[in-house]
Amino acid sequence: MRILGIDPGSNATGYGVVESQRGKLVHVAHGVLRPPRRAGVAQRLDYLHRTVCEVIEGHAPDVAAIEQIFVARSPRSALLLGQARGAVLVALGGAGLVVHEFSPSQVKQGVTGSGRATKDQVKRMVSRLLGIDRVRASDAADALAVAIRHAHGGRLEAAGVSPVPRRRRTAPRVRVRVSS
Amino acid sequence: MRILGIDPGSNATGYGVVESQRGKLVHVAHGVLRPPRRAGVAQRLDYLHRTVCEVIEGHAPDVAAIEQIFVARSPRSALLLGQARGAVLVALGGAGLVVHEFSPSQVKQGVTGSGRATKDQVKRMVSRLLGIDRVRASDAADALAVAIRHAHGGRLEAAGVSPVPRRRRTAPRVRVRVSS
Repeated sequence: MRILGIDPGSNATGYGVVESQRGKLVHVAHGVLRPPRRAGVAQRLDYLHRTVCEVIEGHAPDVAAIEQIFVARSPRSALLLGQARGAVLVALGGAGLVVHEFSPSQVKQGVTGSGRATKDQVKRMVSRLLGIDRVRASDAADALAVAIRHAHGGRLEAAGVSPVPRRRRTAPRVRVRVSS
Repeated sequence: MRILGIDPGSNATGYGVVESQRGKLVHVAHGVLRPPRRAGVAQRLDYLHRTVCEVIEGHAPDVAAIEQIFVARSPRSALLLGQARGAVLVALGGAGLVVHEFSPSQVKQGVTGSGRATKDQVKRMVSRLLGIDRVRASDAADALAVAIRHAHGGRLEAAGVSPVPRRRRTAPRVRVRVSS
């Protein structure tokens, strides 16, 4: 299974392609797409859409993975991020790819084993799991991380283990033992 | 000049096509694009992108107009609106259309003469200016309004009149007369 992970942004969109071969992860490609800064918004989003289409054509992924967004600094930045996500999702949907969304903590959990891992810990695990040099571009590293999360999730699910990170406890858990 | 006005939304995106013929406005088409509700987000945005492409192919506009967004209820709604705008802008940019953005008050001003007109006043003026029955769908009426705004703006600009609405006065204006 070949997985395309995407980390959309209005100035820089990271992508990462990994392959899951018999439970082993193989790095295929990664990179950052940067629309021309001085172009109009429609031209920048068209560029983003076209280059994502090229990545899909070039690497023929079976499935796509993207981070869910819960917070944004402001409605303005959410709008800009939304526009970039829209351009990316159009490319994924147009290619007939199913898109899996993961929360940031699900990605951290799936890559490092901890939903509270730092950015740096995630980056180190990405390069270790894929057997590649440290990925300098954060956007590309994040894109590889969400692709890895999908690969790991699938494996855990196949093994009957829930890939969803444990919820933070809000109250002490009570085990009820039913006596026969 | 044929103008495509668009009012993007995550559930309903209005479009309106008007032609400016020797200073007279002619209605060409309008409608509302509604992605299938139960589809995934990428499929919904792909649908939106494809149908906007179809509108562009069907009506061959020379230019596009869209409302600027300044406010959103929340980052969440800004993100969803941004995604829809992204899908629409990819279609406009991909067709090589220049996209003009207008603030809500610029649209109201350009259609009714007042930047503080109500939604209903804008709707009535849209049908009067185009000589068509009242447009029921608000999204389509808004899309026609932004297309009309662009047509009017162009005309006013050609006549040397600024199409930008007057700013609200924050302090009394003082006229300085230079005596010779």
